[in-house]
Amino acid sequence: MSFARTPDPPYYAVIFTSTRTAVDEGYEAVAGRMVELAALQPGFLGVESTRGADGLGITVSYWSSLDAIAAWKSQAEHRIAQTHGRRKWYQHFETRIALVERAYSGPD
Amino acid sequence: MSFARTPDPPYYAVIFTSTRTAVDEGYEAVAGRMVELAALQPGFLGVESTRGADGLGITVSYWSSLDAIAAWKSQAEHRIAQTHGRRKWYQHFETRIALVERAYSGPD
Repeated sequence: MSFARTPDPPYYAVIFTSTRTAVDEGYEAVAGRMVELAALQPGFLGVESTRGADGLGITVSYWSSLDAIAAWKSQAEHRIAQTHGRRKWYQHFETRIALVERAYSGPD
Repeated sequence: MSFARTPDPPYYAVIFTSTRTAVDEGYEAVAGRMVELAALQPGFLGVESTRGADGLGITVSYWSSLDAIAAWKSQAEHRIAQTHGRRKWYQHFETRIALVERAYSGPD
């Protein structure tokens, strides 16, 4: 459980909403590895991720630019994980790429 | 558990990441009421929301424009809920307003 410590906008967000299949086969290990790998990518700003008891998961990763997102999407080990994700781990997912224009925090 | 059925981009996303306090005092009822009310607002496109066992919650609501987001933020009953949220329900939150530029779904 952690908040991403992002800089002042503008920057990009990748909103990944998903439901899982019943298939495990290494999912947790690969998901954790992808967070580690993403953090090594140029332009990575942070990630926030959660999955509820009902199975809906939302992961939002933050990036400095569209180029940084594209580089991460084509990273070799990440591409293999994406293929496994499509073939066995995700029942459905929605990916949205968005330019963060404003941000504020609270409750202070 | 549900995905938002959003139109083709561009549209806006409000990414609300939060941790709760231990205080309940009507939280669930008000949270449900806010989803109902939001759905009645002009420009509301959908919402995706989840909270994990570790307490981190992510709610992403989708809107047609910044004006629609501003109108929802200043809606009377929502303003009261925001005050309760700041005073007793949320330990910490981050709100990010972002323009969705691209979207795709899978695994098909």
